[in-house]
Amino acid sequence: MPLMKSWVTSANAQGHPFPLNNLPYGVFSTEGTDPRPGVAIGDMILDMEAAEADGLITLADYPLFDVPFWNELMEEGPAVWAALRARLNALLAEDASERDKVEPLLVPMAEAELHMPFAVSEFTDFYAGRHHATNVGTMFRGAENALPPNWLHIPIGYNGRASSVVVSGTEIRRPWGQLKSPDQDLPAFLPSRRFDLELEMGAIVGMTSDGPVSVEEADDMIFGYVLLNDWSARDIQAWEYQPLGPFQAKATATSISPWIVTKAALEPFRVDTPERQFELLDHLKDAGPMLYDIKLAVDLAPEGQPATTIARTNYREMYYSSAQQLAHHSTSGCPMNVGDLLGSGTISGATKPERGSLLELSWGGKEPLTLDTGEERAFLEDGDTLTLKGFAEGDGYIIGFGDCTGQLLPALDDPYKR
Amino acid sequence: MPLMKSWVTSANAQGHPFPLNNLPYGVFSTEGTDPRPGVAIGDMILDMEAAEADGLITLADYPLFDVPFWNELMEEGPAVWAALRARLNALLAEDASERDKVEPLLVPMAEAELHMPFAVSEFTDFYAGRHHATNVGTMFRGAENALPPNWLHIPIGYNGRASSVVVSGTEIRRPWGQLKSPDQDLPAFLPSRRFDLELEMGAIVGMTSDGPVSVEEADDMIFGYVLLNDWSARDIQAWEYQPLGPFQAKATATSISPWIVTKAALEPFRVDTPERQFELLDHLKDAGPMLYDIKLAVDLAPEGQPATTIARTNYREMYYSSAQQLAHHSTSGCPMNVGDLLGSGTISGATKPERGSLLELSWGGKEPLTLDTGEERAFLEDGDTLTLKGFAEGDGYIIGFGDCTGQLLPALDDPYKR
Repeated sequence: MPLMKSWVTSANAQGHPFPLNNLPYGVFSTEGTDPRPGVAIGDMILDMEAAEADGLITLADYPLFDVPFWNELMEEGPAVWAALRARLNALLAEDASERDKVEPLLVPMAEAELHMPFAVSEFTDFYAGRHHATNVGTMFRGAENALPPNWLHIPIGYNGRASSVVVSGTEIRRPWGQLKSPDQDLPAFLPSRRFDLELEMGAIVGMTSDGPVSVEEADDMIFGYVLLNDWSARDIQAWEYQPLGPFQAKATATSISPWIVTKAALEPFRVDTPERQFELLDHLKDAGPMLYDIKLAVDLAPEGQPATTIARTNYREMYYSSAQQLAHHSTSGCPMNVGDLLGSGTISGATKPERGSLLELSWGGKEPLTLDTGEERAFLEDGDTLTLKGFAEGDGYIIGFGDCTGQLLPALDDPYKR
Repeated sequence: MPLMKSWVTSANAQGHPFPLNNLPYGVFSTEGTDPRPGVAIGDMILDMEAAEADGLITLADYPLFDVPFWNELMEEGPAVWAALRARLNALLAEDASERDKVEPLLVPMAEAELHMPFAVSEFTDFYAGRHHATNVGTMFRGAENALPPNWLHIPIGYNGRASSVVVSGTEIRRPWGQLKSPDQDLPAFLPSRRFDLELEMGAIVGMTSDGPVSVEEADDMIFGYVLLNDWSARDIQAWEYQPLGPFQAKATATSISPWIVTKAALEPFRVDTPERQFELLDHLKDAGPMLYDIKLAVDLAPEGQPATTIARTNYREMYYSSAQQLAHHSTSGCPMNVGDLLGSGTISGATKPERGSLLELSWGGKEPLTLDTGEERAFLEDGDTLTLKGFAEGDGYIIGFGDCTGQLLPALDDPYKR
């Protein structure tokens, strides 16, 4: 599929992240107005609340866009998702007949503040990138035992904390936590010294289920994708994670990019999962290509300094798709809900510059990275700004995700003083 | 404090779980009516929606009880919680002047169906009972290494799945899952064969926080307590839990008792946590007695058979209080919300008949229990009904929790067939 042209001419510029082929969903406000759903088209945002109020978008007998999240639209199900996309195409295509009615409802993106695009019901984070799991396993258990025995049979995951998910741009405060280094006898309560990023994709569940779903059904349930940075305190994690998994190490914040890129927009970019070392059991077998060819990069900018790209990789490096993760998540009968967010797990490629965390890039802190500024980084320093970037590359156009960024603020002197 | 008498005379009967001293909060419906908040008093339920509509209860300028959960009341904060309790006391005490207005708003409990008493925001489950952790650790790692090194320094916990929390009485379907026994080379997808209960208490968070809170502040944030059965598939757990903790093993269902017993009702029963082996760090230090003397029991009834009490223990056996768990939960800056549910972890005492799970009672299945019916149990069998019971014993009265019950249904023949 080539570039689809829009009368919003900025959307047609070469390499623009938001052409008509994309149409990602966000929540925005302008000075003095409340957050409401919007659709990105070029440098503009279509105000969905206004479009619905004006009768330009009518998908149900009741309003779907008078709320500051996209969950109401998700609740309507895939037929309505498709109807909305078709309608937006008709309204924004180069030859649109209703252009004069739509044009007044466009807001310049430069004037908008972006908010969380959906209400997160529950957040689950997986560990489904083979290179990442192998790297981390090698550091902690040696190369022979890098992958746990279950890893090649199920997408390992743990429940995260929905309340900690924040939109790109939110500042991240370095956390305190209980730590114990190997040379100490007793733990201490201190600011984390090994604070890290994890480059991930997030899949947003758009339909409910109350029993096991197949991989094919799971794929149908996914509404769209975002970039996701699972901020991680490695020293807190090392002390707390045995035997029940990461807890406070992952609860400070998880940042997501502000635009939900729909599954429909990513359709041309589907790719297969990698070859299997063990055949998966039937309930997890691939039912078609369910990963996507999405180029990803991580930029690190020290405070007041230019950014260095510290990693470049691709979402197709995952061993398990989000559909497989969701299918596994449902096996026990666990009810899944609209707004559930599934983190892919850290996305690393086979070579060193493709690693999606500083833990891997600096090999546990032992081999600090040198930034373009000459500074070294083992883990994040106060003031660092992290930016995740991602796009799928089509025939003369790209599907961009919008950056997922966050600056690390220093730990509070006394976290209990208010 | 002795028994406080009510004009609802059933509440004054010796050993009744719901005297005026208790006043627990639930959600009920009667045939043809919608679920709404109610307060248990003796054999009756005070219809809170009606009481508010009639002007008998006025706590805010807007209604708090026209919804099928207690979260709206929690949102108002501790001063309003106290005002409600005082007002309910005034309306229901033996010498109440407004008895004639209240009496028509009482519904016989025998005619009511009980629903989830609150909307669960997020669910966290802890592992904070020392006898339980020691028993499980001894089975899996030997007596020398029973407790993980962190265990005596932080309350170990993991995030659970809020969507799986159900009210007492809900039937539980034996789950399928991926399992691998030690003698097999590869896993298989099968119904769980080692399905178990865990006897816990659940603490309900009634206030929000967005930074670390002290143990004292955490105690203030707790609204009330329920009994909680954390249904657990031990064989699914054994295969999945390394390295990120339990996931699908705990996601089938978690049952809670239908009445929220308020912290205010439990005030006379506060007790200290046990002696510490290591002094806790300041941020987790006890700030007063924050456990409660609550007698607990577990009944198991095979289908169509009388029940056997398989365990008796006490909530005071916990090593960490819910306030300490909540304080730990907030250390990283993790935002806590109204409706968050914290499972205490399995409550076991020092001796065999005090163990709160079949895993411990049957020592990993090796020493099956003999029930009063003569049947044996290593783990749960299809048709078994589990009932958790709990009460605090005062001077001439008790504070009852209402049973937390659930029957185990057989696994579906094919969980993907609908």
